[in-house]
Amino acid sequence: MPEPLRPEATHVFPVRVYYEDTDAGGVVYHANYLRFAERARSEMLRALGIPHTRMLRDDGLAWTVSRCEVDFVRPARLDDALEVHSRLLEIGGASLWAEQIVRRDKNDCARLKLRLACIDGAGRPARLPESVRGALARDKSSVRKRA
Amino acid sequence: MPEPLRPEATHVFPVRVYYEDTDAGGVVYHANYLRFAERARSEMLRALGIPHTRMLRDDGLAWTVSRCEVDFVRPARLDDALEVHSRLLEIGGASLWAEQIVRRDKNDCARLKLRLACIDGAGRPARLPESVRGALARDKSSVRKRA
Amino acid sequence: MPEPLRPEATHVFPVRVYYEDTDAGGVVYHANYLRFAERARSEMLRALGIPHTRMLRDDGLAWTVSRCEVDFVRPARLDDALEVHSRLLEIGGASLWAEQIVRRDKNDCARLKLRLACIDGAGRPARLPESVRGALARDKSSVRKRA
Amino acid sequence: MPEPLRPEATHVFPVRVYYEDTDAGGVVYHANYLRFAERARSEMLRALGIPHTRMLRDDGLAWTVSRCEVDFVRPARLDDALEVHSRLLEIGGASLWAEQIVRRDKNDCARLKLRLACIDGAGRPARLPESVRGALARDKSSVRKRA
Repeated sequence: MPEPLRPEATHVFPVRVYYEDTDAGGVVYHANYLRFAERARSEMLRALGIPHTRMLRDDGLAWTVSRCEVDFVRPARLDDALEVHSRLLEIGGASLWAEQIVRRDKNDCARLKLRLACIDGAGRPARLPESVRGALARDKSSVRKRA
Repeated sequence: MPEPLRPEATHVFPVRVYYEDTDAGGVVYHANYLRFAERARSEMLRALGIPHTRMLRDDGLAWTVSRCEVDFVRPARLDDALEVHSRLLEIGGASLWAEQIVRRDKNDCARLKLRLACIDGAGRPARLPESVRGALARDKSSVRKRA
Repeated sequence: MPEPLRPEATHVFPVRVYYEDTDAGGVVYHANYLRFAERARSEMLRALGIPHTRMLRDDGLAWTVSRCEVDFVRPARLDDALEVHSRLLEIGGASLWAEQIVRRDKNDCARLKLRLACIDGAGRPARLPESVRGALARDKSSVRKRA
Repeated sequence: MPEPLRPEATHVFPVRVYYEDTDAGGVVYHANYLRFAERARSEMLRALGIPHTRMLRDDGLAWTVSRCEVDFVRPARLDDALEVHSRLLEIGGASLWAEQIVRRDKNDCARLKLRLACIDGAGRPARLPESVRGALARDKSSVRKRA
């Protein structure tokens, strides 16, 4: 998996921690960082002009997480104001890699690397449509397109 | 809404409390009792021979919760072994009323009354198919059929 | 339970629907409206100067939902932009009633009425501290204080 | 991270898929496999005589997921009967590695590798108590103890 290319091409999404996100340990339940990250990716894609419902309607396609690696670095707690910093790492023919870091102030709470696969209505891998690829690469310097 | 008819016609479903179910208050997060209740209803319907996927495949129909009332009586906690006691209260033309009580030992943690509406693929109210009505009323004495 | 007093004293909180909120029926899972409502109440209390963590630190107190009634009126879907409209109905000695409506545009998706009890660290009912009562009643015309 | 040692020393835990687990894509929401896995680990530890609440009461210690890697191989769907196959890979001084595979029949739906850290009440890393280490290594041939 490649390293991030340019730190400055990053989508930032705020997340507030509510009771629903915490567990009896008094901290954010680990699986919920994946929910935070998915919200942030949804907003990043919306900002790029390709919200889920549009991609589904126009192309019959959706994203699915095919792999993720998460380091849980520091617990977040009730009422915390977090930020999810999301970056595309690489765009392949039918998938992409993204890095997402959940932060409180300057401190990382969780670091995720995910592979998102593009799938059709039957759940089969599908090539990224040119419109989607174009939107993702709009800020061309922020991602490296595979040969 | 009618009162329960016969205490003995009750479906009992065990639920264990895991970290995912709790919140930073150290107790089960209130909305999660609705998840427990929905699991129990799913198993009650499966036991009656009409699991969700079968009703969907055979009749193109599904259940939706159209109203619920919940009294949160006593907190449940991590590792607690709970039971959901579910009872049909009344079967209407396109809906049914159920009562569900989440218990730890003999103590009630939450009491729910719900109206479930039968809907078609477009989300419109639909009459209960005879097969479904028959399955629900199999133990005829346990429910009162509306005129 | 009393009727709402003044429609104009309402806290409005935006909620976007993500994949995590939906279910295989293609709509928002019913229990998740309670999560949306709890987020909105948390922000309403924060706006009144009494976020959960402050009330816990200053007074050793927390809110717990002791009863809720929900009407699920109209399904919300992926990518929908919702609003939660929250209103205090009545402030008692150790609890309050609130009404919350989850809307998409001008249409109600879910309507909730909830009783929130104030509890101490042992989970016992506790009187609302004057500071909290004062904050809640700041806009005095918006709520009716019980005798 | 080491490879599993003995396929036969595996804890198997059944999970049924309910509406709450699915999303609008019609499949199990990716983050929920982590919930399934956590349920299975909780039961594995209970079977070994060290449920969460006992470790907390006796030693003031808890487990926290410090890293996980998940491959989402094949979607699970509503009403599916899954199994979580859990195996300890390695026991360190203050942590352990586990492998968990979520299966439907003979097919893998998700494969997880996790590092669980033992922490004290302040969230600091803590050495595994001998009682816990002993319980984990009860079936000594199933795990390799680090030097």
